[in-house]
Amino acid sequence: MEEILGYIKNNKQNYIEELKEFLKIPSISTLTENKNDIARCAQFVSDNLKKIGLSRVEIIKTEGHPLVYGEWLGAPGKPTILIYGHYDVQPVDPVELWNSPPFEPTLKNGKIFARGATDDKGQVFMHFKSAEAYFKNEGSLPLNVKFIIEGEEEVGSESLNIFLKNNSDLLKCDAVLISDSSLYGPGIPTLTYGLRGIAYLEVEMIGPNRDLHSGSFGGAVANPINKMAQLISKLLDKDGKVTIPGFYDDVIKLTKKEKENFKTLKFSDKNFAKDLGVDELNGEKGFSTLERLWARPTFDCNGIIGGFTGKGAKTVIPSKVTAKISMRLVPDQDPNKIAKLFERHIKKIAPKSVKIKVTNLHGGYPSLTNIENPANIAASKAMAKAFGKKTVFMREGGSIPIVTEFSKKLKAPVVLMGLGLNTENLHSPNEHFDLNHFELGIISSAYFMKEFAETK
Amino acid sequence: MEEILGYIKNNKQNYIEELKEFLKIPSISTLTENKNDIARCAQFVSDNLKKIGLSRVEIIKTEGHPLVYGEWLGAPGKPTILIYGHYDVQPVDPVELWNSPPFEPTLKNGKIFARGATDDKGQVFMHFKSAEAYFKNEGSLPLNVKFIIEGEEEVGSESLNIFLKNNSDLLKCDAVLISDSSLYGPGIPTLTYGLRGIAYLEVEMIGPNRDLHSGSFGGAVANPINKMAQLISKLLDKDGKVTIPGFYDDVIKLTKKEKENFKTLKFSDKNFAKDLGVDELNGEKGFSTLERLWARPTFDCNGIIGGFTGKGAKTVIPSKVTAKISMRLVPDQDPNKIAKLFERHIKKIAPKSVKIKVTNLHGGYPSLTNIENPANIAASKAMAKAFGKKTVFMREGGSIPIVTEFSKKLKAPVVLMGLGLNTENLHSPNEHFDLNHFELGIISSAYFMKEFAETK
Repeated sequence: MEEILGYIKNNKQNYIEELKEFLKIPSISTLTENKNDIARCAQFVSDNLKKIGLSRVEIIKTEGHPLVYGEWLGAPGKPTILIYGHYDVQPVDPVELWNSPPFEPTLKNGKIFARGATDDKGQVFMHFKSAEAYFKNEGSLPLNVKFIIEGEEEVGSESLNIFLKNNSDLLKCDAVLISDSSLYGPGIPTLTYGLRGIAYLEVEMIGPNRDLHSGSFGGAVANPINKMAQLISKLLDKDGKVTIPGFYDDVIKLTKKEKENFKTLKFSDKNFAKDLGVDELNGEKGFSTLERLWARPTFDCNGIIGGFTGKGAKTVIPSKVTAKISMRLVPDQDPNKIAKLFERHIKKIAPKSVKIKVTNLHGGYPSLTNIENPANIAASKAMAKAFGKKTVFMREGGSIPIVTEFSKKLKAPVVLMGLGLNTENLHSPNEHFDLNHFELGIISSAYFMKEFAETK
Repeated sequence: MEEILGYIKNNKQNYIEELKEFLKIPSISTLTENKNDIARCAQFVSDNLKKIGLSRVEIIKTEGHPLVYGEWLGAPGKPTILIYGHYDVQPVDPVELWNSPPFEPTLKNGKIFARGATDDKGQVFMHFKSAEAYFKNEGSLPLNVKFIIEGEEEVGSESLNIFLKNNSDLLKCDAVLISDSSLYGPGIPTLTYGLRGIAYLEVEMIGPNRDLHSGSFGGAVANPINKMAQLISKLLDKDGKVTIPGFYDDVIKLTKKEKENFKTLKFSDKNFAKDLGVDELNGEKGFSTLERLWARPTFDCNGIIGGFTGKGAKTVIPSKVTAKISMRLVPDQDPNKIAKLFERHIKKIAPKSVKIKVTNLHGGYPSLTNIENPANIAASKAMAKAFGKKTVFMREGGSIPIVTEFSKKLKAPVVLMGLGLNTENLHSPNEHFDLNHFELGIISSAYFMKEFAETK
């Protein structure tokens, strides 16, 4: 193991240079104009997996963006792990708020700044490099490894879902290892056992059949922006609870033990508010910040546009307004059921003076993993060794919808070994990844392969 | 008079060709990139006023866009009229909804389509051409005429207001004639005696200091779009009344006589809704559509933008959202007072979890004219002669803020001889002007000069 660790330490600079090449590719999955970049990025992943020493690597075409599959099965009798990650990234707007161009990776204060640095290119790359360290030093891995890297995580993982349904034999494994989440804090080894799901919809509200002069028409015809504001405001009550009938029906309440564990994490509301630059936090009444983030569903308008939005004043009553709306979900809420409840409810409460069009953009299931399994125990030991500290267990507010599908279809436990920080601006300008955590992640991955190999 | 009318009839095609040149200039006053077009348009107005035969024409530089002043004072002992209009136009977005390019004037079904066709280039041009008809046939006008044509009507007329304050002697007159409003219906001669005012503000609501991942942060920090929706929805109650304390304090109630006059106009709610493509009208409870449009104040969000507004889904909690908000005002509401009441109220009711920035973009006073004066009586006779029908009197929902300033500073009655139609898409795509009304407007203007000249 010492040779492996030495190799990782000596090669850190090379790893960073390679990661830069990965980060330079603008693989934005939601924008059609980046389709070629996505293809180029899949090729990069495939090339890198071949280079480190896997015995089989394939780019798999889909209806959407390609998957990359890789394997090395040279350890008969030993466990098999499936490592999942994604090479697609979020859009970069508002691009003017970036201090360095989002696809020109920049090192500063021990961090690498670029879109995808922490979500998820930097994190998935850690496992490529731990495997490389084994191959270069021992010519083999301590267990069997499969990789499945997708390009649609930020848009709902539809192609991977279909592939998973039809190829559960190919992906068969004893545990799924995913690094696409966060540490509880800098330098704190963390395993995540719960994720929120999501229902994401677009609502278009249409009033008059054309934009109108607000003088000639104002006061006598419904203004869709006014009405949309009223609609959105009706969906949350004064205590911050979602008012859609049936919304909370399937929510599993936090156990006493979990609530106590959350308390031991000593979360500071004051520091959290300070970091966000807000005078006061805001959320559902009756819950702590960690409970709100990890174990309660939400209702958020993620975007809205309508009418005149340029500089100056234009006195228009717009014909329409469009809002993007998402609800983070917790176990056992079902994104399809929630989307239906949402659509039915808003169509019921919207006034007759406007028309409404709802589009379900994507959904993902929430997940909760029982952590008393050999894979999570091995991961806990591995991280503790890498960091030199006891591993903590937490839930996470974000969604990795595919997690539920993996545990259902492959009947294998999922290990969420996230090395990011939720202060690393994922989905925002100036996304970055701490390069110390990058190295600790490679070491944790290497320890995990060894620890988990020894369970069989 | 027959010669004048004959000349107008014979020259209609030339007038339309000249109007096209006027409409080709994209004189959008609110966009800084059109500053040169504005200057070019002022030059066009100046050249045309010189060409028709005025004795003095000047382009007057201001802090904003230039004014054009013209005069012919060769009728001593006769009354003097001041003709006001504006050569600036509204922006053209959404430009993809125009059937022909907004600055390539297009004739179709007896209408001319272009930005500014009815608001106000087509209407102000009628008076240029009636004056031309007199000069070409008689070498003189029946009374003294002054023109003041501005380039900032769509952005608040600030420069004209300053000019008016310092030059009331230059602009001294017995009546102000303005064509920047609508006929009650096609072919119905109409004089407008009331206009709404406006208070127009921009509200920026700021939450966290950066865009956040809605998974990692959602539920624990205020989402500015959610909060903006709540704020906007609180400003109107369920009866459609504005909830800002003091908002209605200065509203003059409709007289019984006015209400009865409105009823005689036989407004069809059904046709109005059908034209707008809505299933149901919407407005303040307890008032008819004409009352809502002409004699009641409003609250409208004219534009809103925040968060992710591209195609697809991005799970962001935006740092900020911006809304443009206007309130149409009725006599005797004061736009400055209303803007202050608005700002004070929203700062009071906004939650502490967000910050608010309010910018007062522009304001305009409402107006009510007593129609029993020689100028309006002459105008009523003139339009009746031109159209061959009795002139009707109405109020109008739009604003010409300068009207109040004219009557205050010049102590002269204002004649609102509008030849547009409020179905002519002013401020919307496919703005147009009926060319029959264009001709009737030139004739009405010519008759008015004669009728009003005879009162002294």
